[in-house]
Amino acid sequence: MIVILKQEATRAQMDNVIARIEQMGCGVEISQGEERTIIGIIGNGRRLDHEQIERMAGVERTVPIMRPFKRASRDFHPSDTVVKLNGVSVGGQQLIIMAGPCAVESREQLLETAHAVKEAGAQVLRGGAYKPRTSPYSFQGLAEKGLRILAEAREETGLLIVTEVIDPYLVPLVSAYADILQIGARNMHNYALLHAVGEAQRPVLLKRGMMSTIEEMLMAAEYILSHGNNRVILCERGIRTFETYTRNTMDINAVPLLKQLSHLPVLADPSHATGKWELVAPVSRAAIAAGADGLIIEVHPQPEEAVSDGAQSLKPSRFAELIDSLRPVAEAVGRTL
Amino acid sequence: MIVILKQEATRAQMDNVIARIEQMGCGVEISQGEERTIIGIIGNGRRLDHEQIERMAGVERTVPIMRPFKRASRDFHPSDTVVKLNGVSVGGQQLIIMAGPCAVESREQLLETAHAVKEAGAQVLRGGAYKPRTSPYSFQGLAEKGLRILAEAREETGLLIVTEVIDPYLVPLVSAYADILQIGARNMHNYALLHAVGEAQRPVLLKRGMMSTIEEMLMAAEYILSHGNNRVILCERGIRTFETYTRNTMDINAVPLLKQLSHLPVLADPSHATGKWELVAPVSRAAIAAGADGLIIEVHPQPEEAVSDGAQSLKPSRFAELIDSLRPVAEAVGRTL
Amino acid sequence: MIVILKQEATRAQMDNVIARIEQMGCGVEISQGEERTIIGIIGNGRRLDHEQIERMAGVERTVPIMRPFKRASRDFHPSDTVVKLNGVSVGGQQLIIMAGPCAVESREQLLETAHAVKEAGAQVLRGGAYKPRTSPYSFQGLAEKGLRILAEAREETGLLIVTEVIDPYLVPLVSAYADILQIGARNMHNYALLHAVGEAQRPVLLKRGMMSTIEEMLMAAEYILSHGNNRVILCERGIRTFETYTRNTMDINAVPLLKQLSHLPVLADPSHATGKWELVAPVSRAAIAAGADGLIIEVHPQPEEAVSDGAQSLKPSRFAELIDSLRPVAEAVGRTL
Amino acid sequence: MIVILKQEATRAQMDNVIARIEQMGCGVEISQGEERTIIGIIGNGRRLDHEQIERMAGVERTVPIMRPFKRASRDFHPSDTVVKLNGVSVGGQQLIIMAGPCAVESREQLLETAHAVKEAGAQVLRGGAYKPRTSPYSFQGLAEKGLRILAEAREETGLLIVTEVIDPYLVPLVSAYADILQIGARNMHNYALLHAVGEAQRPVLLKRGMMSTIEEMLMAAEYILSHGNNRVILCERGIRTFETYTRNTMDINAVPLLKQLSHLPVLADPSHATGKWELVAPVSRAAIAAGADGLIIEVHPQPEEAVSDGAQSLKPSRFAELIDSLRPVAEAVGRTL
Repeated sequence: MIVILKQEATRAQMDNVIARIEQMGCGVEISQGEERTIIGIIGNGRRLDHEQIERMAGVERTVPIMRPFKRASRDFHPSDTVVKLNGVSVGGQQLIIMAGPCAVESREQLLETAHAVKEAGAQVLRGGAYKPRTSPYSFQGLAEKGLRILAEAREETGLLIVTEVIDPYLVPLVSAYADILQIGARNMHNYALLHAVGEAQRPVLLKRGMMSTIEEMLMAAEYILSHGNNRVILCERGIRTFETYTRNTMDINAVPLLKQLSHLPVLADPSHATGKWELVAPVSRAAIAAGADGLIIEVHPQPEEAVSDGAQSLKPSRFAELIDSLRPVAEAVGRTL
Repeated sequence: MIVILKQEATRAQMDNVIARIEQMGCGVEISQGEERTIIGIIGNGRRLDHEQIERMAGVERTVPIMRPFKRASRDFHPSDTVVKLNGVSVGGQQLIIMAGPCAVESREQLLETAHAVKEAGAQVLRGGAYKPRTSPYSFQGLAEKGLRILAEAREETGLLIVTEVIDPYLVPLVSAYADILQIGARNMHNYALLHAVGEAQRPVLLKRGMMSTIEEMLMAAEYILSHGNNRVILCERGIRTFETYTRNTMDINAVPLLKQLSHLPVLADPSHATGKWELVAPVSRAAIAAGADGLIIEVHPQPEEAVSDGAQSLKPSRFAELIDSLRPVAEAVGRTL
Repeated sequence: MIVILKQEATRAQMDNVIARIEQMGCGVEISQGEERTIIGIIGNGRRLDHEQIERMAGVERTVPIMRPFKRASRDFHPSDTVVKLNGVSVGGQQLIIMAGPCAVESREQLLETAHAVKEAGAQVLRGGAYKPRTSPYSFQGLAEKGLRILAEAREETGLLIVTEVIDPYLVPLVSAYADILQIGARNMHNYALLHAVGEAQRPVLLKRGMMSTIEEMLMAAEYILSHGNNRVILCERGIRTFETYTRNTMDINAVPLLKQLSHLPVLADPSHATGKWELVAPVSRAAIAAGADGLIIEVHPQPEEAVSDGAQSLKPSRFAELIDSLRPVAEAVGRTL
Repeated sequence: MIVILKQEATRAQMDNVIARIEQMGCGVEISQGEERTIIGIIGNGRRLDHEQIERMAGVERTVPIMRPFKRASRDFHPSDTVVKLNGVSVGGQQLIIMAGPCAVESREQLLETAHAVKEAGAQVLRGGAYKPRTSPYSFQGLAEKGLRILAEAREETGLLIVTEVIDPYLVPLVSAYADILQIGARNMHNYALLHAVGEAQRPVLLKRGMMSTIEEMLMAAEYILSHGNNRVILCERGIRTFETYTRNTMDINAVPLLKQLSHLPVLADPSHATGKWELVAPVSRAAIAAGADGLIIEVHPQPEEAVSDGAQSLKPSRFAELIDSLRPVAEAVGRTL
């Protein structure tokens, strides 16, 4: 951290700031510029709270030098993390495809979808049993019944299961059924939940909050990693911007940037990032070309009957076409599908 | 809801859409424009899921007509809701001032602050016992010990207590100590928590998510109201924008707009909305002038020692000056303080 | 400026960076931290281009220390600038009110409005003769005929005239009629135009771009000031955010922050910042309470007949009521109206 | 357009609204819903100004049905527009690569770059002679001298020239040297300039404003098209969001969406969209995979010496590697390079 003093800061104010930093166990180095004095901090600046320093008399502002995430950082763990689960690897040379409906609506709907996505080439089945919905009057999910249907689909197809958990209290129950616990975008800052999935020692699919920076996403991963749970998969799913023609704006920059800043695998969710099924295929191809380790895509047997997110769901036939179109793109960037 | 068909939509596609709408219990009215056909829906369009319709062949898009919130709406409840709690009213002619530190750090810190804000004119003491922090390595709050200190401060000063709850599991415990349960900005979309505080039948201070729309905020209120808990206080606390000189951007438009759309009381939080103590006073005056029913302000006896949000906290002496400066502004808009 | 080196930077890379900085006429100061080496720059870092340094091998990123604006800065000019024009002062103890229609539509419309706003207490008449419109098919303004009508209104009422200029080529013509040249939000980054109004040596009302930062706004002011034209009036008119219930989001924080960072007068435009006439009055009061030096407000004799921005225009009677309601707020913050 | 009346609207208010619409030459169709009355407009609703209607008593809001762009729309011109210029086609099966420095700095710098990008496979040379810079103290370009150097590079290499024009007054001069006129992001809303390049009848590269919606971009294209100049090339170059780790956020969704909404060719600018040269290659591959018709990329022989945008410029050798890596991606989506 660097501390920039105000032009009019007094010698006594500067001494106070230095005393405070030293009291926190760090050293200082003073640069007297023409217009401003700057105090550089020597030692582990991560331990210092910048807000305390900023509030001191004579201080203009502080500037962080170190990224605040540590375990999630590639500096800490230079080689790629490959998350392994029952024969499936996420983050390796082979791409991973997760697909399925937004919500588990019925046994028939889920099994039909599961068989279809399996055949098209998916390795993981998605489907929500607990749904975070903007309206209290919307369908909130089948709860444990939905989890049982997901488990049955795994039995029938051999697909792994990823499903969302929305309440710390439900982590043990969801863990009993699911292979991967999903933290949804609306809960990326729900620290009670992040602690709970960290402790669960299960693989976690962490979706970026629609209002969250890349740094905040890596800090959310840090919460999970700090419990010794290293199997974290990041997922870019679009951010909220001023544009209204699409539901969200896929931050494609985030895909290579996350790969550069962190060792964790990075998926992309083109269904939520666009909100329009017509855009899912081109944006899926873009994500793979940008270096994503895989995709999570909404597929529904009758999208026009879906109880949620129908407008962004693909029919199984279109999903199969999409997967076919992805293979040459994957090869073009040295990956396999 | 209105359904806009594609220019090239066929007669059969239109008939399908109409059949679906009628099957959902609504009527239709067709307008054949020069370039587009439009289907108006008669009956309670709120029951229809627009995504299902949007996914049907021949449909270009749908347009909502009704606002999705109901119990939170002024149409539903035309007169102002005044939340009453132990002799204090929120939403009436008298403004309410909530003040205190970001986090409860110690008995001494809290009691000193409580006496100071009481003397300056506050009616409610704020202070976090459970802190949602971006970093897992930051101070996470004193937990139940913090709640006990808050209760002691209430005993000593007569101030009411507002404190944040971050986990549905903790709602009963926090309710045992606090007069008002706060839902923080990071949890505005945490529906498990909204359900829990709805059931708790305690007054709730609902802070706007930093990237949540006004509509989403009113839908979050709707979650709480749908449990029959009518004592909801809305709080505008700044939204995330591209501007980086301030921590957030106070959406001052939201204050009169929320008062117009809803019957619920509306507070403003100038501390988080600015992130800079120098801006707290002018933005507080602005919020009152815009029609806010009160303020929630961070006050700390030694902001430069605060373990969180020091940069946006006022010293007690500045807080007292602020309250004095607010009185003529309140009078200018026909309120008392 | 501070240069942060990569963890793996070599000694040779560091030496290269230092050589480059010294070659640009600045000195350096090296801090060897545990995890990173930092190079502080001594001398006038404003002369250095951070992008050149950032592109050098071994450099992680650079951090600016100084704000990039100089003539617009309060450090450069500590006392408030009061812009004086024909007996009217902007930025002094007395607030300034500019009002009138979005566009000059006819002689009748403008004269009627001019008399009404004069009577209600405005000192300056606004009205566009050249309109920047999103659609090429919308009304583009009466051009020089509109300017002549504005001049006639000045003759009749004694009001000063502010009107927008959208093309550098038109600056001399518009200057021949107007007292104040307005740079609209869409042209805040139009540097050819900023140069032209800088050279014109006329007072300029500079509106913030709808997605421009406070820093960029002050840099746009710097363009004008760098031509020796010191009569620049800043105007916060709302920024573009994700919120869709209002046309823009009034950045009320910007009002006190601009007053703190700069010596230039600051107005607020509640008409564009809200886009809804019902919100104009409360947001006007908020802007005055936050410390604005005045307001610019859209008034139209028949808003429902206006060819542009009707939805945000006040009728003359409501405008007069608004001015009356502003007087006690102005007094409450030590200003007069 | 559809008009939604307020719940409490009177019969007389409704009749007024209808009379106004009919007076504007359109018909109406009334839907009496349970909670709201809706007026559908029959005829060419594009002629109606929604703001006039919204301001009428009894009206809650209006809802546009038609997209406001016409000549830019694929409905108007269903087949792809291919812009042809001296043997190069933009928008056809073959991708187009434009490359070169941000600014023309010297004859040597430009010629060296021109030869390098030509050899690597580019067809068009970019380079700014007039630079819109945030700071008045930054390098503003070599002006006509820069244009002459660009023309010399065309002579030597056979590359076409694209360069930015920032002032309507300069359009004839720049047209005398350049093959393609560029409208930069900061000028996308500069309507005086859009008119001038529309009249110039030269091919135009129109960059999306960093604060502009897709609809606004297509309306800016409409300005140029409305002068009968059909050779417009759209360019997505990243938008401004809350994310700060990158300079802008590439809106990858915009690429397929623009291709769907419009018949005009669509390029992507990964240099500005990321601001970091390390991200240019993966984001370039993503843009091609998403369906872009080509790229415009910053290349500089010594990026660390560049007077602007050095941090986002590629060295010639890396640019050549990028082009090589793009070929298989282009093939994977059925294009050639």
